[in-house]
Order: sequence, then C-alpha cells, then structure tokens
Amino acid sequence: MRTAWEFIVGPPLPTQRLESERLNKVRALAAFSPDALSSIAYANQEIFLGLVVAGAAGLFFSWQIALAIAGLLAVLALSYSQTLWAYPGGGGSYTVAKENLGPSLGLIAAGALLIDYVLTAAVSLTAGVAAIASAFPNLWPYRVELALMLLAIILLANLRGLRESGTVMAVPVYLFLVAFLGMLAWGVVVALRDGPGSWAAAPQVVPLSSFLLLHTFAAGCTALTGIEAISNGITAFRDPVSRNANRTLWVMAILMGSLFLGSIGLTQYLGVLPQGEETILSALARRLLDGSPAYFIVQASTLLVLAVAANTSFAGFPRVASVLARDRYLPHQFSQLGDRLVFSNGMVVLAGLTAVLILIFGGDSHALIPLFAVGVFIAFTLSQAGMVVHWIRLKGPGWPWKTAANGLGAAVTTVTFLVVAVSKFREGAWVVLLLIPTLAGLFYSVNRHYREVSRELTLHGLPPSLRPVPEPRVVLPISGVHRGVVEALRYAEALTAHVTAVYVETHPGDAERVRKDWEHWAGKVPLVIVPSPYRSIIGPLLEFLDQTDREHHDGQAATVILPEFVPAKWWQVLLHNQTAWMLKLALLYRRRRGGASRPVIDIPYYLKE
Amino acid sequence: MRTAWEFIVGPPLPTQRLESERLNKVRALAAFSPDALSSIAYANQEIFLGLVVAGAAGLFFSWQIALAIAGLLAVLALSYSQTLWAYPGGGGSYTVAKENLGPSLGLIAAGALLIDYVLTAAVSLTAGVAAIASAFPNLWPYRVELALMLLAIILLANLRGLRESGTVMAVPVYLFLVAFLGMLAWGVVVALRDGPGSWAAAPQVVPLSSFLLLHTFAAGCTALTGIEAISNGITAFRDPVSRNANRTLWVMAILMGSLFLGSIGLTQYLGVLPQGEETILSALARRLLDGSPAYFIVQASTLLVLAVAANTSFAGFPRVASVLARDRYLPHQFSQLGDRLVFSNGMVVLAGLTAVLILIFGGDSHALIPLFAVGVFIAFTLSQAGMVVHWIRLKGPGWPWKTAANGLGAAVTTVTFLVVAVSKFREGAWVVLLLIPTLAGLFYSVNRHYREVSRELTLHGLPPSLRPVPEPRVVLPISGVHRGVVEALRYAEALTAHVTAVYVETHPGDAERVRKDWEHWAGKVPLVIVPSPYRSIIGPLLEFLDQTDREHHDGQAATVILPEFVPAKWWQVLLHNQTAWMLKLALLYRRRRGGASRPVIDIPYYLKE
Repeated sequence: MRTAWEFIVGPPLPTQRLESERLNKVRALAAFSPDALSSIAYANQEIFLGLVVAGAAGLFFSWQIALAIAGLLAVLALSYSQTLWAYPGGGGSYTVAKENLGPSLGLIAAGALLIDYVLTAAVSLTAGVAAIASAFPNLWPYRVELALMLLAIILLANLRGLRESGTVMAVPVYLFLVAFLGMLAWGVVVALRDGPGSWAAAPQVVPLSSFLLLHTFAAGCTALTGIEAISNGITAFRDPVSRNANRTLWVMAILMGSLFLGSIGLTQYLGVLPQGEETILSALARRLLDGSPAYFIVQASTLLVLAVAANTSFAGFPRVASVLARDRYLPHQFSQLGDRLVFSNGMVVLAGLTAVLILIFGGDSHALIPLFAVGVFIAFTLSQAGMVVHWIRLKGPGWPWKTAANGLGAAVTTVTFLVVAVSKFREGAWVVLLLIPTLAGLFYSVNRHYREVSRELTLHGLPPSLRPVPEPRVVLPISGVHRGVVEALRYAEALTAHVTAVYVETHPGDAERVRKDWEHWAGKVPLVIVPSPYRSIIGPLLEFLDQTDREHHDGQAATVILPEFVPAKWWQVLLHNQTAWMLKLALLYRRRRGGASRPVIDIPYYLKE
Repeated sequence: MRTAWEFIVGPPLPTQRLESERLNKVRALAAFSPDALSSIAYANQEIFLGLVVAGAAGLFFSWQIALAIAGLLAVLALSYSQTLWAYPGGGGSYTVAKENLGPSLGLIAAGALLIDYVLTAAVSLTAGVAAIASAFPNLWPYRVELALMLLAIILLANLRGLRESGTVMAVPVYLFLVAFLGMLAWGVVVALRDGPGSWAAAPQVVPLSSFLLLHTFAAGCTALTGIEAISNGITAFRDPVSRNANRTLWVMAILMGSLFLGSIGLTQYLGVLPQGEETILSALARRLLDGSPAYFIVQASTLLVLAVAANTSFAGFPRVASVLARDRYLPHQFSQLGDRLVFSNGMVVLAGLTAVLILIFGGDSHALIPLFAVGVFIAFTLSQAGMVVHWIRLKGPGWPWKTAANGLGAAVTTVTFLVVAVSKFREGAWVVLLLIPTLAGLFYSVNRHYREVSRELTLHGLPPSLRPVPEPRVVLPISGVHRGVVEALRYAEALTAHVTAVYVETHPGDAERVRKDWEHWAGKVPLVIVPSPYRSIIGPLLEFLDQTDREHHDGQAATVILPEFVPAKWWQVLLHNQTAWMLKLALLYRRRRGGASRPVIDIPYYLKE
C-alpha cells in the first residue's frame, strides 16, 4: 500500500523543505493566473449566449458590456493590490472579513470562497472540454467522462506537491498566452484587411431589454473570477512577498483585460457567429485561422489553460480549508500537511465535490455559471468592505486615498452582487445563496463543539496529584474455549486478580460443554453463564456488565477484554470478529447511564491461515 | 434504533417458540407451491416467444412441448417424492448430493440452488409486474420501480417470521388457484361454444427447425422450477413430516400440471395471439373474459402469486445458506436465527442480490430466463443422481424400483440440462455455468479457512496449567495533556508500574510545551519525544513500539493505551479520533515481524457536548 501510494504521489518530503517550495514570479503567475486568464473562455460564451437571443441588436452591446466589465476589473485590481500590501501573511476574503467585519461575516466569506473554488474547478473543466469538443465534435458525447478524467489527472499532480505542479502547469499557461496574444495580433491584421463584418444573420428571438443587458452583464462578470487568487495564495510567494505578489497581480490584470477586450472586440468587429455546436471563442479562432493547424493549437491551449485553472482551486481550496481548520471551524484533518507538504485532505474533498457537480450538471458549464457568479461577488464584496474598515481603523499614511480605493471596490462589487443575485436567482443563484449561510452555520457548530470540548478537557482546576484508580475488574466474554481465549485470559491475569469469564448461551444446553472445557483449562477463574432466550449476544452481555458494576459499587466500570482474530488474508476478515466488533461499538458508543466509561482491551490473535 | 426495528419486524421471539412455527398442510402448500404454480406465467410466455417466430407452423408445436414438459413434471414428482421419504430432516439438492456424491458435487448443487433462489425471486417479481402491466399498460415504464417495491415488501414480511408470512401469503395462492381453475373451466365452455380458432395471423419469420423446438423446450422447462421447494423446506412441516410433505407434493404437482396443460391447450385450441404489449397468458384471459372484471382479477392474482413465489426464495435461500454455514462453508452469521426466528442475514443478502439482478436486466423476465433454467437443472440432476446412489447403497425393501424411479429422473434431467445449457449458452447460460463452480470454490475456501483456524485454536496438546504472562508494559501515545489523557494514565497506572508516554512531534518545537505540561501533571511517568520530520504520526509510533520491545527483550509486546472521545452527537464523530482509529487499524492489522500480538486498551471519554 505504502509503496503504491509513494509511486503515485512521490516519496514523503520533510517539513524543512516547506520554505524551498515557495514560487518565483514566473511560476507564481502560472500558478495563480490561469483561473483569471482562462475565464474569457466562459465569460465570452456567456455574453454571446445572453445577447444572441436579441439578435444583431443585442450582440451590438457586447462591446459596451465588455468595457463595463473591464472597468470593474481595473477597480478590483486596485482594491486587491492594497490587500496584498496590508496582508502579506495571507489576505483571503475570509481573513480580511473576519479581522475587520467580525467572525460571522468572515465565515460567510469562507463559505463563499470554498463554494467558488469547487465551481471554478467544475466550470473550468467543463468549459475546457467544450473548447476541445468544438474542434473535434465527435468528443461531444463524452464530455462528462473527459472532464472527470482531467479532474483525476489534476488531483494526482497536486497530491505530488505544489512545486512540481508549478512546473507541469507553467507550460500550458504560457502556451495559451502566446497562442491567444498571437491570434489577437493576427486578428488586427485580418480586421484591417477585411473591414467590419455584420451580425445580420442572427435572428431576434426576444426584444432587447435592460433586464437582458443586466442579465448578460451578470453572466459576463464571471470573467473576473480568479482576480483574488493571488491574495489568497500570497504566502507561496518568495520574499519580498508583497512586492512580488503585487507585480504579479498587475501583470495578470493587464493580460486578462487585453485578452478579454481583444477577443470581444474582434468578435464584434468581424461579426463572428458560431456554426453549429461550438463556442464563440472557437468561432472567432476558426474565422481568423481556419484551414491552418493554428486553430487546433488555440483550442488545445484553451483546454489546457482551463485544466490548469481548475488547478488554481487545488491550491486555494485546501489552503482556505486549512486556515479554517487551524481556527477550529473545520475538522483538524484539513490543517495537516500531507506527505508531500500539501494539504492532501482538502484536495481529495475538492475533487470529490467537483466530480459531483460535473455529474449533476452533465458536464455543461453554461448550467453552472449562475451558481458561480453569485458566490464570487459575495466574497469580493466582503473582502473590499473589510479593507475599508481596515484602513479606517488603522489610519496609516495616505489612509483616505486607500479607503476611497477600497470603498469604490466595495460599492462596485456590492452593486454587481445584487445584479447577479437578482438576475440569476431563479437559474440557480438561490442554491448558493442558501448554501453559504448553511456552511457558515456548520463552521460555527464545529467551532462551538471544539471550544466546548477543550473547556471540558482542560486540566485547570484539577489538583496536580492524580488520585489512583483501584485495581480494575476484567470481564472476558467467551464463545468457547480456544487458544485466542487462553491468550486473553493469560493477559487478563497478568493485569489483575479480578477476572470473570462470561458465556452467553443462545442455544439452551450449549453451556454445559463450555463449562466443562473451561473448568479443565481455567478452573480457578469463575465462569458465569448468561442465558439468552432471544438469541441476542450483545444485549444480555451489556446487562451482565451493568449488573456486576452495581454489585461491586466501587464506582468503576468493569473492563472488557476481547480476543480479536487477525486473519492472514484480507477477505478472511469477513469470516471473523463480527460479534466482537458489534460489542465494541456498543461498548464505546452506547453511553452508560452511570457515566463512568468502560475500558476495552483488544488482544489480537494472529491466524496463520 | 432498537424500537424502530422492532416496530417494523415485530418484537423478538424466544427460541422455544421454534417448534410452534411449523406449518400445517394448507399453509405449507401456500408456502412452498407458489413458485411451482406461478411458473406458468413465464413458462407459457417463453414457449410462445420461442415458437411465434416460426409463425402458425411453429405455434402448432406448443401442445407437444407442453406435453413433454408435463411428462418431465411427472417424472420429477415421482423422484422427489422418494427424496421426501428418504430425507425427512431436509433433503435439498445440497444435502442429497453431498451425502451420496461427495462434498464437491454437494457444493456444486448448493451453488446452483442459491443462484436459483435469487433468480426465482427476480424472475417472479418481473413476470408479476409484466402481468399487471399487461392490464394497465401505463405502468410499463415503471417496471423496475414496481419490482423493487414488491421486493422490499416481501423482505419485510419475511423478516417478521415464517408463520406470519404463511398467513399473509396463503390468501393470494388460493385466490390464484380459484381464479385460474375457474377461468380454465370457463375456457372449456367457450371452446365448446366457439369451436377451434386459428393462428393464421402469425407471420413466419424464421423457418421451423429442431433447434428452435429444443430451444423452446429448454425455455419452457422453467415451468418445472419450484418442484424441489418442498424437499428443501421439509423441516417446516408438522409431524408426520414425510407423509404430510408427500401429500402436499402430489397436490402441488397435479395442480401445476393442470394449470400448465389447461392454459397451453386452450391457447392453442382458440388460436390466441397477444395484442400489442401483453403476455400470452393475459391474451388468453382477455380472449376468455374480456369486458368483465374477471380479467382484472386473473391478472391481479397472477401478480400476487408471483410475488408470493418470490417469497419461496425467502424461505429457501436463507435455509440453504444456514445449512452451508452450519457445515462451515459460509460465514457463521448465516446460521444465526434472528430475533424473529428466521435467518435474517440470508434474507437481506437475497434481497440485495435480487435487486441487483432486477436493475441489471431492466426488470425484463425474458432476459433472465436463460440464466434461470440452467441452474435449476444442475440442481435437479445432482439431486436425482444422488438418490440413485442412495438406494444402491442402502439396499432397503424395494430398492430396485426406487433406484429405477430416481434413475429415470436423473437421466431425464441430465438430458434436459444438456439441452438447456447448449441451446441457451450464448444467451446467458454461460454466466451461470461459470458462476456455479466459482461459488463452489468459494465455499471450499471458506471451509478450509475455518477448519485450519480451528486446528490452530484447539487446546489439544497444550498443558492444562497456563504459564502466566509477565506484568505488561504500557505505552500511552499523547497529542497533548488533557483530561482524556489523564484518565488513560490513571487507568494504566492501576494496571502496571511500567507506563511510558510518547509524543510524536510533527512540528519542530511543539514538544517543549507538551513536556512542560506533562511534567506538571504526571511528572514521575517518563515521556518520550519522537521527532517526525515527515509529519506522519503512525509510522514513527510503530517504530518506537518495536524499538522498546527490542530493548526489553522480555518476549512480550508493549500494550498501547488510547483515550477515545465519544461525542454526544453522531456527526461529531467526524471531528474526533481519526488518528486513534488509524493507529488502532495499523496496530491490529499490520502483522508484526516478531509475531507476538500487541494488546490495545481503549479508554472511552464521554464528551458532554
């Protein structure tokens, strides 16, 4: 087992290597920007699908909507840039909201973030598969399978550790940048050569309305997802952390804006329409590059960068989960670094949830978008509002300007959140609006439980000298007399002089033989026969134990000692111990009225066959 | 939990009531005949489907095939009648084959029987649903759901106990007999009134061939399933067991033959053809009774008797499994009588397997038939051959006649088995032909394992005086110092003077605080710090344990004591003990090179919140 696992994820890494796993800027851009950059794949598609129902008159608004979103991008970049300076130790929405707006809103932000990471993975993978299925339509029926396969590959790469994923993932990101920037440059040449096209071919199905435009704007805002990735993952940067992160943020924002405006602008200028089953981005690439292998390179690089975008979630989700676990809002397991210095538990949970989403939504990214946008903007709004409070509290140099910048961010994201929530409510946003407070409530319950447990467990108030327990009474339940029982009996006798064996007689008359054997092999140890007219073993045994405790009234519960067979082959486990396991579960998890807990001793008996 | 279970299956019954749960003849006929009687529902259908492809010329052979099968029925009834006299203690194919042909063929028979019980349940339920969907075609899309619903109801009725199922199940059986015998009598009147019909409307698709006839005969032989039910379940009869069982067998065989020949004869004489999606039996009932509510009564009673036929499996499968378990060919659990004096484990397994078959075959009985017929005839053949050997060995009064009767049975069933296996091989019989030896092999492995274990565990050869074990060394792994740890420490100190605490330091520097706490609360007990540069807890702990064992070389393995938190609410289990569970699994199931087993002590700590 161990070796198979190591073969897949690589040998364990010592904790000291944590420092050297940090990323330089080139690798950091590759690690944190794919989500942001690749979002043009689905954002363009959503803007097109939103407007095409209103025909050419609708599509005409593509550029205006793209400009509005680009403006939003600039505001968000400015806002998050300030977060990077203020929170070099990790400034995710959760941290910023918790510190400045209080734990409740912090938990709301955390819930929103975790949901977004799952949706990023699901949307990116399904959009990536759509890109490649646009080039090879015969892959269309296998979208779900392809998306799940990609997910599995990404999970494995991530379980191997961040550094290696960095290397694996950097190539597609830069390939995508080269392919798309190259295509857009060539697009300008084509546009100058061919002159403007028209969308006359698009029929108008519904009238153009401001709701339609708002609705499209809301869906297009998914272009902005990923902008917060750097502030969440800032601790992976090398020193000086804030400056390196900031430069990376601005490079990313400029690339993102160029790709987005460039692709929408060319689509509109050339009047591109998709033919049959393909994405609008594929239609643009086909218009510009058709007949050349470059088209396939562009589509393949879209698939790859989207796959890598799903990877952003594999960096982010486990990190947020580990921060929550460290604050005791999630089970401890999420805060434990795995063998390869990554939070393996969080990764596995993320992959599981993503797979479920892909299956439920049949691998269709368009169906997932309404859920996606709303969560993102909740996190944005809370993070920006938190920064406003941060600057007002801190009143450092230049605080009014900083407050104004983040205030603008908060105002713009709040408005966008409302637009998204209202216009996408019935299409699925309600699910997320319901889920986020539920998650926050769950975090809160976990935290309350852990806090109360540690209050219960604290030794404050206990006298430092420990009152010793009296010598334990040990009860050995037997089903017959054999070597396993004898081993257990020998061990029990080494512990205490108070050993009693007990046999539950489920079939009248069976006890006689057992008593004879017992007297032969262990004559001096008392054997109690408990009749069980209803053939249950557990019930009469528990009653017997409670009764002996009452009879001894020494305040302690009798210890139960159980031989447990360990077979040589795994399937043989099915042939042994069922009654012992049921009894152990009953002993441990059936709380006793008395209150004193009942110790259980397992004596493994290794079977040779 | 307990009370909910009791509400569903009824309160537990004491073992003494076992005797009074035996059945009188009227109830026994209802309990053991439904499979046999109801088999006309699918056997007629298979004969029709087998011949209709050859048009009227093919269907003309229905009567000949029915006569051949009825002859087979007579031979089988005679054969099994002898089994009932010879094996009043339970004469299933397994017992007869094992005692007379040796354990290997006995196991083959047992595998065939168990598979047949599962297929009886699946075929009966799906055929029953087909009967009712013939009357109400809008139920057709819900065949799988309906079959599963029926299955669940039957499982529950059976978990409540045999007597009560007897009562519940007797009504439909007698209703079916009255409805069908009445319909057939009325059919004779109709036949005399209307004169012969013709099958001119049936087009010939393939030419009539002897293979087609053999193939149809093979499928029609499913009419004979259920004839062995009485010899399997004979112990449920009242005294005198053999005579009561025998009378019931002959009544059943005569009823079975009359229903089968009557329905096939009328279908052929009147030239009945189904209209659209309905069974041939439904077509006959519609021809005779159309326009009257009697048609619906006949269809409903078909559904009910088939549902009750599935019940035969719920009596038979768990009984055969319990016999196998008593002979140590299956895990012990199958031999344990449940609260309600039935073999609950076997019932639950049967229901699970049946549900899987219904789902895989989409609720279509026609698809299941090829698997069904082949297993039945393997069991028949082995049982009859075993009886031949039985009489030859015994040489009691009249043994040549008895040998001849069972010899005829063996010859006829062997030929039929070969016909079925060859003609249905590619349609699914191969699955069963493969599965039966696999099951037999599995039984054999289980048996070998149990035998070798009891050889290992026997005390023969051990001196009666038990050499005492030295005082145990106890190791207490801690993750910090809290009340749970203190409880465990107090208990350990009551057991022995050799207690060592151990802390695995996964994060450099953490150990300092733990050591300070430990010295404050348990200064005199030594604490060992084990560094873990790879952050694993289990591995370093196991190494430490092995090392202390080596250092002490007293031949014993150190005992591990673990505090285990028992939370107040079930979901909180997810928040605790994961490391303790992993450690326990590793301790119990990772066999140690040394060989001495390592005892584990659990100290439950009840959390209030």
